[in-house]
Amino acid sequence: MALAKVVTRDWARRRTAKRERLEAVRSFTSGTSGRVLDAGRTGDALQALLRPGDRVALEGDNQKQADFLAEALADCDPDVVHDLHMLISSISLREHLDVFERGVAHRLDFSYAGPQSVRMAQLLADGKVEVGAIHTYVELYARMFVDLTPDVALLCAEQADREGNLYTGPDTEDTPTIAEATAFHDGVVLVQVNELVDEVTRVDIPGDWVDLVVRSPRPFALEPLFTRDPRQIGPVEVLMAMLALRGIYERHGVTTLNHGIGFDTAAIELILPTYGEELGLRGKICKHWTLNPHPTLIPAIESGWVESVHCFGGEPGTERYVAARPDVFFTGRDGSLRSNRVLCQLAGQYAVDMFIGSSLQIDACANSSTVTESRLTGFGGAPNMGHDPHGRRHASPAWLSLLTGEASAPRGRKLVVQITQTFRSGGVPAFVESLDAVQVGKDAGMPIPPIMIYGDDVSHVVTEEGVAYLYKAAGLAERREAVAAIAGATPVGRDIDERRVQELRRDGLVALPEDLKVDVRKADRSLLAARSIEDLVAWSGGLYDPPARFRTW
Amino acid sequence: MALAKVVTRDWARRRTAKRERLEAVRSFTSGTSGRVLDAGRTGDALQALLRPGDRVALEGDNQKQADFLAEALADCDPDVVHDLHMLISSISLREHLDVFERGVAHRLDFSYAGPQSVRMAQLLADGKVEVGAIHTYVELYARMFVDLTPDVALLCAEQADREGNLYTGPDTEDTPTIAEATAFHDGVVLVQVNELVDEVTRVDIPGDWVDLVVRSPRPFALEPLFTRDPRQIGPVEVLMAMLALRGIYERHGVTTLNHGIGFDTAAIELILPTYGEELGLRGKICKHWTLNPHPTLIPAIESGWVESVHCFGGEPGTERYVAARPDVFFTGRDGSLRSNRVLCQLAGQYAVDMFIGSSLQIDACANSSTVTESRLTGFGGAPNMGHDPHGRRHASPAWLSLLTGEASAPRGRKLVVQITQTFRSGGVPAFVESLDAVQVGKDAGMPIPPIMIYGDDVSHVVTEEGVAYLYKAAGLAERREAVAAIAGATPVGRDIDERRVQELRRDGLVALPEDLKVDVRKADRSLLAARSIEDLVAWSGGLYDPPARFRTW
Repeated sequence: MALAKVVTRDWARRRTAKRERLEAVRSFTSGTSGRVLDAGRTGDALQALLRPGDRVALEGDNQKQADFLAEALADCDPDVVHDLHMLISSISLREHLDVFERGVAHRLDFSYAGPQSVRMAQLLADGKVEVGAIHTYVELYARMFVDLTPDVALLCAEQADREGNLYTGPDTEDTPTIAEATAFHDGVVLVQVNELVDEVTRVDIPGDWVDLVVRSPRPFALEPLFTRDPRQIGPVEVLMAMLALRGIYERHGVTTLNHGIGFDTAAIELILPTYGEELGLRGKICKHWTLNPHPTLIPAIESGWVESVHCFGGEPGTERYVAARPDVFFTGRDGSLRSNRVLCQLAGQYAVDMFIGSSLQIDACANSSTVTESRLTGFGGAPNMGHDPHGRRHASPAWLSLLTGEASAPRGRKLVVQITQTFRSGGVPAFVESLDAVQVGKDAGMPIPPIMIYGDDVSHVVTEEGVAYLYKAAGLAERREAVAAIAGATPVGRDIDERRVQELRRDGLVALPEDLKVDVRKADRSLLAARSIEDLVAWSGGLYDPPARFRTW
Repeated sequence: MALAKVVTRDWARRRTAKRERLEAVRSFTSGTSGRVLDAGRTGDALQALLRPGDRVALEGDNQKQADFLAEALADCDPDVVHDLHMLISSISLREHLDVFERGVAHRLDFSYAGPQSVRMAQLLADGKVEVGAIHTYVELYARMFVDLTPDVALLCAEQADREGNLYTGPDTEDTPTIAEATAFHDGVVLVQVNELVDEVTRVDIPGDWVDLVVRSPRPFALEPLFTRDPRQIGPVEVLMAMLALRGIYERHGVTTLNHGIGFDTAAIELILPTYGEELGLRGKICKHWTLNPHPTLIPAIESGWVESVHCFGGEPGTERYVAARPDVFFTGRDGSLRSNRVLCQLAGQYAVDMFIGSSLQIDACANSSTVTESRLTGFGGAPNMGHDPHGRRHASPAWLSLLTGEASAPRGRKLVVQITQTFRSGGVPAFVESLDAVQVGKDAGMPIPPIMIYGDDVSHVVTEEGVAYLYKAAGLAERREAVAAIAGATPVGRDIDERRVQELRRDGLVALPEDLKVDVRKADRSLLAARSIEDLVAWSGGLYDPPARFRTW
C-alpha cells in the first residue's frame, strides 16, 4: 500500500496555542472557573492573548457592537500586537478602523462599512488596510467554518455568569454563530457583558463555548436601525404601497415574506390594517414574516394580520411589546425575544416566498445597488434575501405562480421585488443607464461590480408609475422595456414610446394604477394606520418604548 | 387615527398550552427540576403531551434517529392522539410510517424517504398520509421558523443532566436547530438520551431549551452512511478521478469544496496522496472541506493535504480518529467532533467553491436525479450544495474562473460537478432523454418534476469518456452537445458525430483524457492510497474503528 508520504506532525497546534494563550491571561482573571477577566486589565489581556497575524473576529454586527473590546484592541501596542487579520461583519465604529490606522491590524474581511466607508477608502488608498473580500453577512460567517476560522473572537452579550454562560437578550444576532466557529476550532472566545450575574436570565450560549468574560463599564452600543417614523411617509410611498399590495401581494397570494428597511416597505406595513382590510386580504396574505421587530408592523400585528415573526436581530424600544406577544414572536423561557441572524437568513432564503426592499439606484437591466456615491459600503444581508434560491425544492402557490426554468426542468421562483420612486429627493433619478456601483467597484479594484441585486433575479419593480412584471419578460430586451415603462421621466424611462407601453400592459408585463384598480386619489397619509411614532405607541397599548431620538411629540 | 379594528385576543396561547402540557406529564417525571421522564411512562407521557392536530418534529436526521420516541409515538392510542402533522427530515424507520398507518398522524412534511419510499407510496395511495411538501433538509428546518413551527419536538442526544443540558456527541446534526425552533416558540422539547449523567461531557444545547429528557433503554440508531469500502472502487472510478483532478480541480484551482457520497468521489479522495502528489498539487487544491468525516479522506489528511473539515454530521467509527486531529476537524472542549448540518450547509453554500457528487441519471440537458425507480425518495441535502448561489458576493479565483452573468452584471459561479459512468451496473445507461424522476413526479401528483440538480446549475460533467465544461456553453443546444460528447454509447451519446466532438474539444467545451494529459493506462487500483478498509485503519494509525459490517479482513 502506498503509505509513502505520511506527514509526521503535531495535530493539536491550535489546542496547544489556546492553552498557552489562556495561561498568559490567567493572572488577569478571577473566579473559581478563571473565566472572569478584570475589566481594568482588558488591554493587558488582549496583548497577552493575541499573536501577530492572528485572525480575530470582532463583533461588529448590523446593530450591536462589542465596543469596549474594540476600544481596548485599538489601544494595543502595535509593537506587541500587529498584523492582525480582522473579521468584522459591520464596520460601524471609529475603533474598527483605528486598529488599522495604528498598525494593530492589517488585513480585513468584512460585509458592510456604511458609516465608516469614506475613511475606509482613505485607509485603503494609504495601504493601511488590505481587504481580503467583501461579503454578505452570512458568507462571512460561512467562511468562519471553512478558510477563515477565528483564532480569537471578541463578542458581546447582556449577561454572563461566572461559568461563562451567556444571555444575549433580544439582540442575539450573530453571537452564537461566531462563538460556535471559534469555540469548536480551539479559538479563544472573549465576551464583554453588561452584567455579571449569579444566574443568567436564560442561557443563549453555553459557558462551555466561552473562555473569558469581562464586565464592560457601560452597556454595548446598539443602533435602532429598523425604526421608521411614519411622519416621513408621504402620499407617493402610500401610492406605491397600494400598487404593491394589489399588483403583487394580492395577485400572487404572498403569505410568507421578508421586508427590507425603508419608508417604502414601512408604508406597506402601515396600510395593511386600512387598505388591506378594505380589500379583504387579512388572513390571505402577509401571515408569516422574517424581519426585525419593525415598529411599523405593530398596527398589522394588533389588527390580527400577523401569525409569526422570526427575527435577524432585535430593535431597541420593542422589548416590552415583543415580550407581550409571544404567539407572534420567537421568545425564550424568560419571555424576551430570541433572534438569530443565520437562522433567519436560512428562513428568509428557503422558507419565504417574497423579498421586497427599497433600492436607491436601478439600471436599465434592473440591476440595483444602494451605493450611490463614490464609496464602497459593502453588501450586508440584502443579496441573500434578494435572489432566487436555486437550491429550493418545495413548492407553494406564490412560488409556482412565477413558473420558470427550461422546458425539461420547470420550477417556481422567489418573488424578488424592488421598490423605489423614479426620482429620489433632490430630483436625482433612481433609474440610470449605469450604476454608480460599477465605477466605485472599478476604482476600488474589485474583480466584479458590487451589485446588490442582480437584474435577472428581480421578479418585479414597483414605482409610483406602476408595476413591472420582469419575470414574464422573454429576454433581456423585454426586461429593459418593462423597466423603462415604469421609470417615468428618468433617462431610462424616456427611451420607451407610448405604443410599446400599451403592448406591455396588454401582455401583462406592466400594470399601471388603473390596470390594478388602484384609485390614485385615495393615496394619501390618511391610509396610514399610524401617522407618527406616537400613534405606534398607542397601537401597542403603551408597550412600545421608542428611543429618545424618536420621541418627537 | 385608524384604530378601527384592533383585535382583542390572548397573545400567549402557545405559552399557556405549553404550561398545560407540561402540567399533564408532571406525575411521570422525577428530579428537582421535573425534567426527567420515567422511561416506562413514555407512552403515557406522549398521550398526555400531545393534542390532535399538533405539529410534531420527530428527529429523523440523515444519520441519527430518535427511535425510542418514534416507537412510543407509533404505539399511542389513535383515539387519544390523532391527526398529528409530522415534520421528519429523513423517513428512515418503520415507525416513521407506522404513525400514519395507525392513524396517529395524518399530514407529513419531509425531505428524504429512501429506505421507506415504497411503503410511503402505498400509504399515499391509500390516503393514509397527506404530504404537505417535499423539501431539502435545510428548507424543512427553515420552515420551522416560519410557517411550520413545531408544537412538540422529539429529539435524541448522547447525554443529559437533570437540568436538561444536552451532549449530542459527534453526531450533532440537526438537534440544535430543531430545538431552537421549538423552544423559542413555546413548543415542548422532549429528548431521548443514551445516558443520564450528573454532568454532561460538554453542553451542546443548554438545558434552558429542553423541557423533558428520558433515558432510552438502548442507544439511538445511527447509520454509517459515509463509509465507502475502497475494495469496491475499480479502474473506471480511478480514471474518472484522474480526469476530475486534472480537468477541474487543478485547472480551476479548487481549494474549498464539498464531496457528495459515493465511490466516484471516494476515488478522488484516495488518489490525492498518489496521483495528486505526482502532479505537485498538495497545498494548491483541496485544502478546506465541508463534509462528514469520510474514512476515505484519512490518507489525504495524513499526507498533509487537508487543512480543515467542517461536518454536517458524524460517522460511526471515526470518533477516535477525529478527536486525535483537532487542527483539522471542529471539536469541542471535550475533544470530540462538533457537527452542525445547518451551519455546514451554510458553509457549503456560501463559502466553498465546488460541489461534486455522483449522479444516477442525467438527461440530455444535464438535469440530474438520484430517483431511478418508480418511487419518490425526496431531496436530502444535495440541491443546496448543487446549485449556483446567486446570493454570493465575495470573489475567489476558482469562482471567478467561471465568469458568467449579463454584460452589465458579470459575476463568478460555483463549480457544480456531476460525475458518473456512462452506464451503471447491469448495463443501464446513466444518460437518458428523460429522467425517471419526471414520470415519478407526475405519478405522485407533484406540481413540478423532482429534479435533484438543474442542468443550468451544472458547470461540469465527468464520465470515463472525458469532461464537459457546460459553463462555457453558449446556450441550451451547445450544452446538449457537450453532454452528448461524453455520454459514450448511451442513447444521449449516440446523437453526436465525431466532427462536432472535435469542434467542442477545440473550443474547450469538452476535454478527452488525451486533452488533459491523463494516461489512461495508469488508471488502475494501484493509484488508490488505500485499497481496503484495513488500509484505512493502517493509515489512521489504528485510530479508525470501522463498524463491524465493514470489518472484512
